[in-house]
This record gives sequence, structure tokens and C-alpha cells, in this order.
Amino acid sequence: MVSHIGLVGLGKMGNNMRERLRRSSIEVTGFDPRPEVSDVPTLADLVAALPAPRVVWVMVPAGEPTRGVIQELGGLLSEGDIVVEGGNSHYVEDQERAAELAQRGIGYVDCGVSGGVWGLDNGYGLMCGGSAAHVETLLPVFDALRPEGPREEGFVHAGPVGAGHFAKMVHNGIEYGLMQAYAEGYELLAAKKDVVTDVHGTMKAWQRGTVVRSWLLDLMVRALDEDPDLSELDDWVDDSGEGRWTIDEGVDNAVPLPVISAALFARFASRQESSPAMRAVAALRQQFGGHAVKKAE
Amino acid sequence: MVSHIGLVGLGKMGNNMRERLRRSSIEVTGFDPRPEVSDVPTLADLVAALPAPRVVWVMVPAGEPTRGVIQELGGLLSEGDIVVEGGNSHYVEDQERAAELAQRGIGYVDCGVSGGVWGLDNGYGLMCGGSAAHVETLLPVFDALRPEGPREEGFVHAGPVGAGHFAKMVHNGIEYGLMQAYAEGYELLAAKKDVVTDVHGTMKAWQRGTVVRSWLLDLMVRALDEDPDLSELDDWVDDSGEGRWTIDEGVDNAVPLPVISAALFARFASRQESSPAMRAVAALRQQFGGHAVKKAE
Amino acid sequence: MVSHIGLVGLGKMGNNMRERLRRSSIEVTGFDPRPEVSDVPTLADLVAALPAPRVVWVMVPAGEPTRGVIQELGGLLSEGDIVVEGGNSHYVEDQERAAELAQRGIGYVDCGVSGGVWGLDNGYGLMCGGSAAHVETLLPVFDALRPEGPREEGFVHAGPVGAGHFAKMVHNGIEYGLMQAYAEGYELLAAKKDVVTDVHGTMKAWQRGTVVRSWLLDLMVRALDEDPDLSELDDWVDDSGEGRWTIDEGVDNAVPLPVISAALFARFASRQESSPAMRAVAALRQQFGGHAVKKAE
Amino acid sequence: MVSHIGLVGLGKMGNNMRERLRRSSIEVTGFDPRPEVSDVPTLADLVAALPAPRVVWVMVPAGEPTRGVIQELGGLLSEGDIVVEGGNSHYVEDQERAAELAQRGIGYVDCGVSGGVWGLDNGYGLMCGGSAAHVETLLPVFDALRPEGPREEGFVHAGPVGAGHFAKMVHNGIEYGLMQAYAEGYELLAAKKDVVTDVHGTMKAWQRGTVVRSWLLDLMVRALDEDPDLSELDDWVDDSGEGRWTIDEGVDNAVPLPVISAALFARFASRQESSPAMRAVAALRQQFGGHAVKKAE
Repeated sequence: MVSHIGLVGLGKMGNNMRERLRRSSIEVTGFDPRPEVSDVPTLADLVAALPAPRVVWVMVPAGEPTRGVIQELGGLLSEGDIVVEGGNSHYVEDQERAAELAQRGIGYVDCGVSGGVWGLDNGYGLMCGGSAAHVETLLPVFDALRPEGPREEGFVHAGPVGAGHFAKMVHNGIEYGLMQAYAEGYELLAAKKDVVTDVHGTMKAWQRGTVVRSWLLDLMVRALDEDPDLSELDDWVDDSGEGRWTIDEGVDNAVPLPVISAALFARFASRQESSPAMRAVAALRQQFGGHAVKKAE
Repeated sequence: MVSHIGLVGLGKMGNNMRERLRRSSIEVTGFDPRPEVSDVPTLADLVAALPAPRVVWVMVPAGEPTRGVIQELGGLLSEGDIVVEGGNSHYVEDQERAAELAQRGIGYVDCGVSGGVWGLDNGYGLMCGGSAAHVETLLPVFDALRPEGPREEGFVHAGPVGAGHFAKMVHNGIEYGLMQAYAEGYELLAAKKDVVTDVHGTMKAWQRGTVVRSWLLDLMVRALDEDPDLSELDDWVDDSGEGRWTIDEGVDNAVPLPVISAALFARFASRQESSPAMRAVAALRQQFGGHAVKKAE
Repeated sequence: MVSHIGLVGLGKMGNNMRERLRRSSIEVTGFDPRPEVSDVPTLADLVAALPAPRVVWVMVPAGEPTRGVIQELGGLLSEGDIVVEGGNSHYVEDQERAAELAQRGIGYVDCGVSGGVWGLDNGYGLMCGGSAAHVETLLPVFDALRPEGPREEGFVHAGPVGAGHFAKMVHNGIEYGLMQAYAEGYELLAAKKDVVTDVHGTMKAWQRGTVVRSWLLDLMVRALDEDPDLSELDDWVDDSGEGRWTIDEGVDNAVPLPVISAALFARFASRQESSPAMRAVAALRQQFGGHAVKKAE
Repeated sequence: MVSHIGLVGLGKMGNNMRERLRRSSIEVTGFDPRPEVSDVPTLADLVAALPAPRVVWVMVPAGEPTRGVIQELGGLLSEGDIVVEGGNSHYVEDQERAAELAQRGIGYVDCGVSGGVWGLDNGYGLMCGGSAAHVETLLPVFDALRPEGPREEGFVHAGPVGAGHFAKMVHNGIEYGLMQAYAEGYELLAAKKDVVTDVHGTMKAWQRGTVVRSWLLDLMVRALDEDPDLSELDDWVDDSGEGRWTIDEGVDNAVPLPVISAALFARFASRQESSPAMRAVAALRQQFGGHAVKKAE
């Protein structure tokens, strides 16, 4: 049974996860390039500090940072050790990496982690992919991280390597759709304040008993508690990449995703200072009808 | 304080509401055209059985049935009485009716009721519109119907007459978007069962700790518990009218609703045996490219 | 055979139509509130100037202006006269007006007119609704206005009163979709100028031989000829009302309109200084993940 | 000046192109695995028959067939020869192939070809990518294939290698949007035949003078001429791959493509016997409201 793991990456997520694991008496040796938060000076020291067979959980930004850490770990770890990729890798990359590490006897488990900054106290929703033996080994770690309650309501061994991040990708795609649905409803309420005079109170009242109650709705109410007209924020919305992968998968598999794609495209549009497409529509209207347009400033 | 009300309509919703009110010691005289469930033989008898000033809650299907009952009540009630429209009327119709009844001193409160068949035990989310005095009078009834917990998390006085049903309309529009988001995610998971081998378990594991947890997700898991491949159901989905009104309002108020409209249109398409639009696209492809088409059977 | 008609409204469209009719030797008495363009000082003078049975073509802005003119005409015209509504009335209003005028023996034909400022030289595409007898009477006028070529390729008697404006409404809904399709393609080309270095030339080259060639594409090329980066225009796009009616009809008739609605919603969004919905999404992201947001300026 | 080229692939497109080239006195040696249409027995014979420097135009299905032919040509051709990829390759693959062939001094030009079965008589819209020198060399061939009229209205040198197929990809994405726009309008007209009694005639009348006139509209009218209710076709619509790439590019470049994606997803949905997503929505409605659903048959 695993009782001591390494954790690489002590940012917003990793730091909280170290704390939550320690609360459950899992010993954690954390490494981060920032000495003020790191338990050891180097990744090699982290590996050296762990009992064999070692478990190293990687929790660094997706893309190059994750790639770099796992490659380095590949050189430091030994047969029988396990790498857990807890970030947001693409599932195909998981499959490729696992195959490489397997050649040297190193195990690989990909684990989607949901819950954001709330996970420290609420626990993290976990979706993992890997072999049954590896997942079995890691259960004490998963149990420490996941929320209270039945294990199967906050954790799943979703399939072979890649399944965890595929599940997390779909989870995030759904999340885009859910957020946009609430946001559209909010805007429509706010547009008719002569009818619904208490928009904030209305969304607050949806928290119990209604069909639309959810954790995201609770957060929406929190946001309105703090800023009732959402006037302190810009309407600029980033996207993390997982929404894009979701659409790519839909396209590859001929799965219609009208809602999730609409949510993603709304984010793209929110970041444009001037939409070339809408300038083109304005230009067309001017051409055929002499319709009113606005000159660019 | 109201301690005895009339309730017209004892269908799936009304019957449960009568039961929930009685559990909270609100006396209820119910009327329904079906004698086996009705407490009194006629609407006039219901009115006669109530202490003045009377409260009559109407819980019958939207459209003609609701219109008919309220018109008949208009002739039976007296100054100071209150009609509560708990069905799914359009908010503009609420405003018109309230004005008519006000000419005879009869009050009108519109109340959106959410919660479906689960409301009997969980309580109903309530959004109402009307005057402060009328809503104050009705509070004991609302308190009996709404879920446990803080009143403002399951009940709102959203604004003047019409606000309740406008809020409920937007609630339902959001609901369409939420359902479609989960449904698209489900389909994408199900399309890649070589990656995520446990779709059912994956959605079950989203119930705690994740960003997408919600009551609708819990219901999705229940549905999968009963029918893991959803193979017992047809892909035909009705719509109740409130989603349509939501789009109409978005269009009237220049509020973009890409997600809610996509969800509504997916339902329309689900009910078509053959889509004239897609036959037109097939015809175009055949015309310009001699592309393969399928002959109608 | 009609050889002399009245024309009310001498704006951008009406003025050109008067000119085109006169080129075809149709006598036109035009009325407009602006004396510098009007042939007669009042609507009554216009009616007095026409031979009976009279034909009066109304070409004023939709809504109140059209309603006012037709009501006034109703009082001035006589049995056997015909009103042609050439503006953009809603087809249901056409049906109501026609019924009113019919009580006094006055005929009504609704006619959708397409072609914009190009109609003077190219002719106008015409779609009309009304009785066979009325349409027959008006044929010389329609023939003068429509483009050269076979009558049935630029004119249709689409059905009873209302059909003309219903057809025009759908025409405009399609137009929204077509324009947005070209605009999206333009934006994608412009986003990859390292690949397609000549965006302007590429769209120009689509004018002959390709599947996407069209009059709107020709206009797009004209716009790019004048302003190759469309940098002189703001990305603000108005909508005329007919796109909205198209969506309302789709919703009423359970016809999925994903493309036309997306085009309409893109216009709505183009006119928002700050999108309340996207501020709501930003707020949600901030709540659950501490994600980067931008403060409103 | 090129006056004799090789053409590989004599299917629907290639065969017509050979014919059109020969009409313009370009000598063509064609190869196809089917001896009955091929001018030579093998690809090696084709190469042997051409004067150096050779030009070989490849017109075979995208993917493996194209890859195979170009690889084989790489082994048969010599420095100074040029391969023209006239099929539907992905532009990134063009860039990779061109780099490989360049190592052996063989030129590569990618050319998107639009026009379908009509191209033989109308000419083909051409968009090509490659070096200025290669394109210059090929001009006689492009001029023979493109439509009558100014060269720049039917042909473009859009940029370096890849530009031709990128432009063609966007062209096809736009085409998806245009087709769906007409199709939605057709369906809405057909849904209200009590208003517009002559749907066929209405679309026919849009061919001249209107804003929506186009070649696709002409084809729509042809389709309705042959089958006025489009009742002979199934509503099953294939997609060729280029629409998918367009969405992938939009996603990669953060370009919102609501219309083109909606058109693609409508095609995906048209091919589903039963939509898992809509079964999920039906299941949810059954769970919360006891709403009517249909059992699968």
C-alpha cells in the first residue's frame, strides 16, 4: 500500500493536493522549481527521497512543462515505479508516453482531476486510466484526494491509459455547455428587468428544489453575491484547450456537438477586439443595400 | 394567515402538491374533473368550501385549460380573493389576466413551480410574481411547498405579475441547454468505448467533487443505472413550449442564445422522420457533384 | 391593363423603382412627405391623380409608417382599387389588413422586393401574394420592375395574401445564413495569411466555375476591392427584423434553423459593448478555478 | 510552355479534365488502373511518354490513394519535373510532401479544383499553391481548365505550397454553410404550404434580381424541377472531410465558425439511425418529470 508519494508541481492545484494528502496521512515529498514551496531542491532529490516502488504524481501545466517533467522522470525512475499524470494532457499523448515508459518497466496512469480551488476541502473528482494493477496500487492516494462519500461517486477507473484524460476532456466540454446555458439565461433575465426585478434573488432561489440546481449555479450565486450586476468583470473569456479537443473529437467521430461548440465559439468571439467575420457581413450589407454601417474608429 | 386553500388540477403535479401541503398542515380542498381524485364535485363547490378571503391555486395544463379555469374562477370569486397560477402560462398572458381580475378586486399571483415528480419529497423550487401584499399573504403556502433550508434558496418573489413565469421560462430554457450539454458529452464518451470503457461509471464518478455535478447529472446516472446503454428509449424528444418562448424572448430582446436554441432545434430534429432540409442538402450534392445519395425507401 | 400607378414612399428603394417603372413607360405619380422628391403635395392628391380602378404601391418603412399610409389609403380609395404593400410587413399583418380592406371592396397584394440599390439597373426580384385576378391586373407593373429574362426566374405569385412577404422573410433569413457563411470563411482565410497570402485574390477567383459563386460573393469581392482588409468598417451589424421573424416562424413550426439562428445571434453579439453572458462565464471561471479574468475598464 | 502533361486518375473528375484539356489542344497522357480508360498500362509508361521537364497532374481520391501515387511518382520523376496535386489533400500534408520532393529537385504545386461534373463545359475554379516559377510554367494548363472570362475570376495563385488546398478547404466549408442556409429556408417554406402555396416557383423566382441568387440556388431549382417535394431522396447526407478540416482549423486558430459547424453537425445527425444524445435527453426528461417518451422499437 502506497503511503508516501512524490508530487511534482506545487501551483494552485498541486499545493492544495499536497495539503489534502497530508491531512489523510499520506506522506508527500513535493518538488517545484520555486524553492520557497518545494520540499526538495531537485527532481532527482525527490526521486531519491521516495521508497521503492515509487509513485510520482505530476501536476504541472499541460504541454511542454508536462512533457519535460515526464521525460526527466523517465530517466530517474526504475522498473516497477509509477508516474501519475494529473494534469490536462491529451489522451493520445498519454498513450504514447505510457508505451515509451513501459519499455523500461515504468508504469503510467493518467488521472483527470476536477474541483478547482475548492478541492482542498471538498475533495477532487477523479477519473483515471491505466492497468488494474497500477490503479489498485494507487487507491489509497485516490481515496485521500476524492470527496467524502461512496468511492464510485467521486472516482472512476474509466479504462486503459488515456481514459482518464479523455473522460476529463469530455467533462470539461460539458462544463463549457453548462456555463454558457446559465450565462444565456442570466443575460435574458437581465435584459428584462422591468419584468424580473430581482435577477440575483431569482438565481439564488434556483439552488434548492429546481431542475437546474447544481454546483455551478451555486457559484453563479456567489458571483452575484459579490457583484450583483457582474459589472466589475470584462466579458473576455479564455479557453483552456480541453474544449477545443472535445470539438476535435466530435468532428473526428461524427458526433454532433452543437451546444459545446457554440459555447467554445462564444469564448473565441469574446476575445476579439474586432470580428473580421462581422466586418465582412457589414461590408456585404453596405454593398447591396447601402445599409448603415459604422466606420472603424 | 392562509391555512386553507383551494387547488384546481390534481394531475401528476397537483396531486403531489396537495399531499405536500397537507403534510404541512395546510388544509386543501382539491378539484379535478375526475371524481375519483376530486374533493368536491364542482369548481363552485370548491369556492364555496373556502374561507374568505379565498386563495385558489390553479395547476392545470397551460393554454386553454388554464384560461378556462381562471375565467370561471373570475365569475365565482369575490373582492379580496387571490388566484395563484401555478402552471406554465406565458408571462404576458399573466399580465393581461391580472389586469382583468383586478377590475373586480381579485388578486393574481403567477408562480413558476420546478421540481417535477420529486417535489413531493424534496419540495418545489418556486418563483412568483405579484404584489408584495399578495405574496405576503401566500407565504405559508409557499413555505409548505418549497424545499427545506433557507427560504431564499428555494423561493423568490421575482417581481410584479408575470415575473414568476418569466423566471420559470428562463429556468426551463437553461434546463434545455444543460440537458443537451450532458447528452452531447454522453454521446462522445459512448462513441469512444475503446478509450473510456466504463461510460456509466465515469458519469457516476462525476457526482461528487467535479465542476459538472448537479441534480440533472444525478438523474442521468439513475437513467444509466436502469438502462446502461439507453437502448430502451427512442431518440424522440418533445418540447413543452417554454423553450420556444425563451428563444422568442431572446430574439425580441436581441439576446444571443446559441446554446439554448441549439438544444431546442436538436429536439425539433429528433422528431422528424425525414428532414426536408437534409433532403435538400442531399439534392444539392447530387446536382453539383454526382455525389452518392440514398433513395428514400 | 395598368399603365399608371401611384407610388407612396420615394426613399432609396421607392425612388429607384419610380425611375425603373418610367423607363418601361409605366406612368408613375409619386408621393413622399419631402416636397423636393414628391410629384404631388398630399396622398389625397395622389389618389385623385390616378385613373380608376387605381393601383397604389406602398414603399415606406415597415411598422407604423406602413400602417399609417395604408390606413389613410383605406379612407381615400374606392371599390375595385388595389393597394400593393411592397415594404417588409409581417405576413400576418398583411392577412389582417387585406381582410379589412376587402370589406370595402379594396384589393390588397403583398409583394416582397429584393435587389437593393442594384435593382434600378438589374431589376428587382419579386414575390407576391394575393388573388389571381389582382396579380393578373398588376402584371405590367411587375414585368417592368423584375429583371430581364424569363418572368418565372424573377417573379412569382407565391400564394394568397401574405405569401409574398412570407417568401421574402424566408429569402432574407437565407440571406443571413449565406452572408455569415462567406464571412466565416473570410475570417478563417485572413487568420492564416502565412498560408493563403492572397485572401482578396482567392475570393475573387471563386467568382467563376466554383460551387460557391453567387451575387453575394461578387459583392464581397467588390468590398475587398475597395478595402482589402475590411479595416475601414466597424464589426457592428444591424438586423432588419425579417431575420427575427424567420426564427420565430421556425420556432412556431418546429423547423430547426441552426444556421440562420447562428447568423442572427452573431449580429446581436456584434452590437454588444459588453456581453452579460460572457461576463457571467468569466465570473464562473473565476469562482471555481481562480482563473485569470479581466477587470472591466 | 507546357503543351503535354500526364494525368493520373481518370474518374469522374479526371476524365472530364482530360477531355477539357484536349479541347484546348493540351496533349494529355492519362493513366488509371482501369485499362479501359487508361492511355498507358502503367505509371512508369506515363512518365516515359512525357517530354522533360515533365508535368504530372494527380487526380485520385484523397488519403492513401494520393499518397501512394505521389510516392511512386517521386521515384519515377527527375529534377525539374513538377507534380500537381489536384485532389483534396490536407494542406499540411502538401507542405510535407513538397519538402520531400524538393530534396530531389522535383517541384510540387497543390491545386484546389471546384466545379464538379459541370466543370467540363463551364470550366473549373482553380486555387493553387506553390512557387511563382512553377505556377508560371503551369499557366497554359490552368488556362485550359479554368472558366472563360478574366483569369483572376476563375484562378488564383493563393500563396506558397498548401495555399491551394487551404483555400479549397475554406471554399468547401463555406459551401456547407450556403447549402444548409438554402435547405433551412426550403424547409420553412415547405412547412407553411397554406401560406406559400408554390414553394418550387418561389425558389425559381429567386434566380434573378434577388440577393440570394447563386449557382447553388440554380441547382436547388433544378433539383425541384426534377422532384418538386424532394420525396425521392433520403435525408442522409455524407461529408467529404474538408468540412471537418475547416472546423479543426477554426478551433486551432480561435476563429468562431457557428454557421459552418452547424452545417457539419446537421450532416452528422442526418446519418444517425438513433441519436445517443437525444436518447439521453429523453431519459433525463423521463427521470425528472415522468414525461412521455417513446420506447425504442
